[in-house]
Amino acid sequence: MASEMKGRDFIAITDFTRGELESIFELADSMKKYAKSGLQTLHGKILVTLFFEPSTRTRLSFETAMLRLGGAVTGFADPSYSRVVTGESLADTVRMADSYGNVILLRHKIEGAARLAAEIASIPVINAGDGTQHHPTQTLTDLYTIRNEFGSIDGIRIAILGDLKHTRSASSLCLGLTHYKDVQLYLVSPEELKAKEEVKDYIRGRGMDFIETDNVENVIPEVDVLYVTRLQKERMSDPAEYERVKGSYFITRQMLERAKKGMIIMHHLPRIDEIPIDIDYTPHARYFQQASLGLPVRMALLSKIVE
Amino acid sequence: MASEMKGRDFIAITDFTRGELESIFELADSMKKYAKSGLQTLHGKILVTLFFEPSTRTRLSFETAMLRLGGAVTGFADPSYSRVVTGESLADTVRMADSYGNVILLRHKIEGAARLAAEIASIPVINAGDGTQHHPTQTLTDLYTIRNEFGSIDGIRIAILGDLKHTRSASSLCLGLTHYKDVQLYLVSPEELKAKEEVKDYIRGRGMDFIETDNVENVIPEVDVLYVTRLQKERMSDPAEYERVKGSYFITRQMLERAKKGMIIMHHLPRIDEIPIDIDYTPHARYFQQASLGLPVRMALLSKIVE
Amino acid sequence: MASEMKGRDFIAITDFTRGELESIFELADSMKKYAKSGLQTLHGKILVTLFFEPSTRTRLSFETAMLRLGGAVTGFADPSYSRVVTGESLADTVRMADSYGNVILLRHKIEGAARLAAEIASIPVINAGDGTQHHPTQTLTDLYTIRNEFGSIDGIRIAILGDLKHTRSASSLCLGLTHYKDVQLYLVSPEELKAKEEVKDYIRGRGMDFIETDNVENVIPEVDVLYVTRLQKERMSDPAEYERVKGSYFITRQMLERAKKGMIIMHHLPRIDEIPIDIDYTPHARYFQQASLGLPVRMALLSKIVE
Repeated sequence: MASEMKGRDFIAITDFTRGELESIFELADSMKKYAKSGLQTLHGKILVTLFFEPSTRTRLSFETAMLRLGGAVTGFADPSYSRVVTGESLADTVRMADSYGNVILLRHKIEGAARLAAEIASIPVINAGDGTQHHPTQTLTDLYTIRNEFGSIDGIRIAILGDLKHTRSASSLCLGLTHYKDVQLYLVSPEELKAKEEVKDYIRGRGMDFIETDNVENVIPEVDVLYVTRLQKERMSDPAEYERVKGSYFITRQMLERAKKGMIIMHHLPRIDEIPIDIDYTPHARYFQQASLGLPVRMALLSKIVE
Repeated sequence: MASEMKGRDFIAITDFTRGELESIFELADSMKKYAKSGLQTLHGKILVTLFFEPSTRTRLSFETAMLRLGGAVTGFADPSYSRVVTGESLADTVRMADSYGNVILLRHKIEGAARLAAEIASIPVINAGDGTQHHPTQTLTDLYTIRNEFGSIDGIRIAILGDLKHTRSASSLCLGLTHYKDVQLYLVSPEELKAKEEVKDYIRGRGMDFIETDNVENVIPEVDVLYVTRLQKERMSDPAEYERVKGSYFITRQMLERAKKGMIIMHHLPRIDEIPIDIDYTPHARYFQQASLGLPVRMALLSKIVE
Repeated sequence: MASEMKGRDFIAITDFTRGELESIFELADSMKKYAKSGLQTLHGKILVTLFFEPSTRTRLSFETAMLRLGGAVTGFADPSYSRVVTGESLADTVRMADSYGNVILLRHKIEGAARLAAEIASIPVINAGDGTQHHPTQTLTDLYTIRNEFGSIDGIRIAILGDLKHTRSASSLCLGLTHYKDVQLYLVSPEELKAKEEVKDYIRGRGMDFIETDNVENVIPEVDVLYVTRLQKERMSDPAEYERVKGSYFITRQMLERAKKGMIIMHHLPRIDEIPIDIDYTPHARYFQQASLGLPVRMALLSKIVE
């Protein structure tokens, strides 16, 4: 049985047990019917958004979730804030938000920023992405999408593709998958952009198998889920190397010919050109539904932790 | 009788029939009394503002309209968004908004952006201005202001003044006037900034007369409405030509001496120096009232189309 | 007895009588219990924020206050607005806000901007800081913090420290203190950054004593309140002079050894390095509580003046 979650912070996907995640997913199921109409369960509550790094999708989905629950929103949406009050410490900004709101949503480029905020604030802090490893509400959405598709996350075969070194949603998903049994994980990236050792150490420590490879084609027929992330030229030291490998990380219809019939493609969006538009019309595309599912699962999370 | 409008998009002023416009105006009349207090008719509904081009006046009037109806607002207010997610397609952004909100308000510099969004979104899309031709809610406000002043739009004599080539509210008003009978339209601009052929073709096709001229002075005594837009130096190829003509497009009290007693001056605001402040105190000035009337008419539009 | 305040502007701390301030403080006392839950007393009312200069703390505290009272918020948060509509007059922007909202919150770098806005708008205007002298809601918060600590403001001994020439919250506090009896005021600054003559003339005219000095150390043992503001290098004409004096205006634990036991340190925040973090853990630090008290006092102000 899931423990009481009121007042809890949510900084890493590993902060919650599998049972607690499941209780969020079950609540999300019932939230779906309110995704266009709304409830009044958080009436009088305020979400404070502190986005030191802009993220329109994450911000809008949380603002919508809070408004759909009858709550209200204040805060700032982009880093122009930090240009202005150059030098104010994160701690002081968090103290301000703590005295005004009922829950804080923080986005920051520095690793550990959300954990620090949670230590300072008396109200719950939700990590909307910090550093290169944690983006737990994206992972919540990702896991919920898989569960929604296959009924269960146990036993899933999944490839995570692209820049596994810098993409926080990729690392966070790796961590999140360790909650489940018999997961077969393929980490597919160029040599230079392999998942960090600390992420792999954590996965190993939790007893989950994974295979590292740079061969996308061989992996596609094996998996139930192809989780695509963006490969950025500027992340690779050698432009020639980028040109050589990029083709492997841009999905094409042809590559999908050998995929299982029920295989789904996920992406946390925004995408640029790593998934061309003609893939949208294949039965594999699931990234738009994934984005929609972010709303009920965030409504569920807010319902669980806001006091 | 006006057809049911729930769920309809509003992309061009010509998307609605004259009867439908009239039903909006009648509802706007009754909305005036709620302009400072508010209703709860859209309680639980969310407006998503996607402003790829900033427009404080249009955004604030819509946000206020939605809040006055008991609804809520999320979205982004300026194009710093597009700096961030460079390259995400408009279509993907619209899909996100579609899954979160109950109505989308879109502003974009590219012609046809709103029409594209409407094709993608299942919820209603309102065009808050795109390209150089369409700004239908500005036109709704303009027509409502004329109706409010003269009781009817049929038979009105109106001059639209300034940069008719690039000003979307001017083109949109031309289109909107074709809904009405016996309108006498004067298009007053420098040769280089004349209304586009496609706009004039549309007007002709609807059987409305218009006169093109660059002589402001001769037109002023003839009209009931003088609709002023801004003339920008950077829009003209020859700076010397700009210096030569600009005097004609900056209204002065002296120019108004030969105007009809009941003639009104309109402007979609913001103005810079094309209408000097001393005109504000003449009985002709109607641009501030025009701005106020944007609120009840937008409340009426939202009430009509949001499901 | 305090006069009726509905519909009043709040541009300078001297616009309200001592009795009126007291009635706000008393209401703030009762608002404290709603600071995390909320009321519905301003349901249906809209606050329009016009921030021509960004100020996240002031804006967030007002937005929270309005939301906690059941009201709603629209407006703009930063000066990117002014980049866009270059040249629109403040007057026209205020007229727009006046026709949409129930109360305007204005921040502007130009002296007198809020007074001008109040003359134009029919709805109440609250000055969120303009020019170098007025920031009345910060002063309301400051006075309320002192009253909260000592039970009374009469007879208080207070030093205001730092750049007294350019810091609007410092000038505004000087003006606000003239409402009270037997206040002993120390103005502590480098010679170049002394309080403006017009501020000192006003204080003298109200019969309040003050002492000007550049010696921080001698003043600390004398006071109940040490109000710290930031000293900025770029405000001083001679960098060498800045280096010479800065040490005196950066508070250290050692400087506090001779302070009275009950002395409190205040700061309007954000701070940079003028108060080091180790001071936070002394019993003197009161700046975080001061920030929190800004919420109930602004809730009280809005409750008093919004019609």
